[in-house]
Amino acid sequence: MTSTFEPGREGVTAAAGFVAAGVAAGLKSTGGLDVALVRSLGPRYDAAGVFTSNRVFAPSVRWSRAAVSDGELAAVVLNSGGANACTGEGGRQDTARTAVVVAEQLDCKVTDVAVCSTGIIGVRLPMDKLEAGILAAAAALDPSGGSAAANAIITTDTYAKTATLVGEGGYVIGGMAKGAGMLAPGLATMLVVVTTDAEVDALDLDAALRAATRVTFDRADSDGCMSTNDTVLLLANGASGVRPDFGEFTRCLTAVCADLARRLIADAEGAEHEVAIQVRGAATEEDALEVGRAVARSNLFKCAIAGNDPNWGRVVSAVGTTRAAFDPDDLDVSFNGVMVCRGGAIGEDRHLVDLHPREVHVTIDLHAGAEQATIWTNDLTHGYVSENADYPT
Amino acid sequence: MTSTFEPGREGVTAAAGFVAAGVAAGLKSTGGLDVALVRSLGPRYDAAGVFTSNRVFAPSVRWSRAAVSDGELAAVVLNSGGANACTGEGGRQDTARTAVVVAEQLDCKVTDVAVCSTGIIGVRLPMDKLEAGILAAAAALDPSGGSAAANAIITTDTYAKTATLVGEGGYVIGGMAKGAGMLAPGLATMLVVVTTDAEVDALDLDAALRAATRVTFDRADSDGCMSTNDTVLLLANGASGVRPDFGEFTRCLTAVCADLARRLIADAEGAEHEVAIQVRGAATEEDALEVGRAVARSNLFKCAIAGNDPNWGRVVSAVGTTRAAFDPDDLDVSFNGVMVCRGGAIGEDRHLVDLHPREVHVTIDLHAGAEQATIWTNDLTHGYVSENADYPT
Repeated sequence: MTSTFEPGREGVTAAAGFVAAGVAAGLKSTGGLDVALVRSLGPRYDAAGVFTSNRVFAPSVRWSRAAVSDGELAAVVLNSGGANACTGEGGRQDTARTAVVVAEQLDCKVTDVAVCSTGIIGVRLPMDKLEAGILAAAAALDPSGGSAAANAIITTDTYAKTATLVGEGGYVIGGMAKGAGMLAPGLATMLVVVTTDAEVDALDLDAALRAATRVTFDRADSDGCMSTNDTVLLLANGASGVRPDFGEFTRCLTAVCADLARRLIADAEGAEHEVAIQVRGAATEEDALEVGRAVARSNLFKCAIAGNDPNWGRVVSAVGTTRAAFDPDDLDVSFNGVMVCRGGAIGEDRHLVDLHPREVHVTIDLHAGAEQATIWTNDLTHGYVSENADYPT
Repeated sequence: MTSTFEPGREGVTAAAGFVAAGVAAGLKSTGGLDVALVRSLGPRYDAAGVFTSNRVFAPSVRWSRAAVSDGELAAVVLNSGGANACTGEGGRQDTARTAVVVAEQLDCKVTDVAVCSTGIIGVRLPMDKLEAGILAAAAALDPSGGSAAANAIITTDTYAKTATLVGEGGYVIGGMAKGAGMLAPGLATMLVVVTTDAEVDALDLDAALRAATRVTFDRADSDGCMSTNDTVLLLANGASGVRPDFGEFTRCLTAVCADLARRLIADAEGAEHEVAIQVRGAATEEDALEVGRAVARSNLFKCAIAGNDPNWGRVVSAVGTTRAAFDPDDLDVSFNGVMVCRGGAIGEDRHLVDLHPREVHVTIDLHAGAEQATIWTNDLTHGYVSENADYPT
């Protein structure tokens, strides 16, 4: 599902009728790519977006939420090297100015330009560098620019994340994502742009995007910290001429989002394990999610995984802090298929569990119903502490 | 307030009419002290207790909650080296047997014996060793035994914690505490026994203890993890003949609990900083507590403190996840008195903040009311990861 169909076309330019670019504008001290531009060539400009639920949100979130509210976008400009959050009235003006410069370059309406920023909070963007970067990016827009764009939005990520998929009838969905820290439900420090050449009306795009993010990005909880800048945008230009069935489109979009979400978790700051916490036997899906998140946010549990220790006591003590329906004497907990806790008490020998593989599956059965949900998280390692004690984001 | 008045008398034996002991029974692999016994000599046996709010709780919590429900306790037995939690019906019988052995040794009612256990979850206690330890401890009970008892209950703590205080009229309150990990509101992995020779009725003891713990132990949140075994017990024997004013007694008890709580935070696993997060200008005390806890549980914030980085972006992004009343454009955040975020935007130069001292004061002003509260937490360090990736608790 992540294969490239045409040489050089991946991520946001895998679908027909999209061009992109990534350039180095000097926003990052490393000198790496830091400004990305994505442009839809039409014929349609349907779009949808979901944003951080953090009450402290960046001007770019406010701007993009307004821009997409009429169901249309023509372009997205993204910068790493600065989140432009908590920067006051000046920061708000910087975001508006960014959209104006893009609109001038692309000859489109300023209200059809979405803006995304990521990096340190509380620092103004160097607008002279950013504006020069936008000019350079506009000049470099190309159908093979998806890779450069994906590279231009990363911060502590160790590699760029893209995913592509071909739907029924031959339409294409492609996306790019960044995010390695501040990853938590309500959407993470995460910027995602997904493009498709399918023909889908804006209202359907919105419904499909909400359905897809609810079970993918919203269930990735690397470190429990919610960002001020999270944004997921979906642009559909209809260039393929294919008008997909809504259910089929939603399933394909969900697959692309799941792929990107898994890549975010796999590259989370300092992570040595990806952990799927599946909660089943729940009375409601909400109960399953609450239990999964409580375990995913237990630092003791996360450290145990880092130490390859199937410490089920730390799982049940986290489960016990929730309001979910369950009887403590009915709890079953398995690590990689070994039921180390059965009926709330000692089960199989914990030494039978091998946690050396990078992917870990923890299953919690509440024996209280028929619902289930899976939360993906990471272990808590020395690498996480090093990155976040030393790298100011 | 923590001075010792009589040579050799500290902690739970600082007050008149209490004897204690701590012995090595072989429960800890290190061979250290691991069984503590505290006995009241009367003439009164008033007592109160507060316990973990975790829905998964150990048999010792169930037992002690029942034992103190009639307002009387004659003795407390405590063991480290095993939490005896999630150990099924066998574990419940072990706790009952522990109380029976103590009652036989001290010739008191089994329902006047409280039991506390701490250590790894999901492992049965070696009852032969524990019973032998109880016999040895009963034989060693002494008015100077408070220090040994305090040492017998520690696990990953690096030192024993005791506190004492003399109230008006000369009565004494003394206590001991253990706990270094799984420290969070709702009470931490924390065992605390406080004794006093004041004459206080059980109902007043209960009210005073709830008032004291609500603003002390309940506001210590080292790592956000709630234990299955948390217990705070208060025994009053009236041996001083002093019947204190309720308000004065509550203030003194709160001071002792605050002292012990600060010692727990100061010795938390791997901690390099103690952090007081004061939230003021809150519409309600609940809002202040919710905001303080959200910041205290942000791993990104905790890592920033470990790196001596006054990263206020991580503070405001945590504040933004709460339901508390505030306007993002009104938020002020100070680190050690330097207001680095003013009105939700850039304030003083962050380089003016010196985070090298161990104690850090973060002040968040919501400008939404007149209420305030302070949560104490720790930074997230390599030491925390090492202890919890390698030491199974």
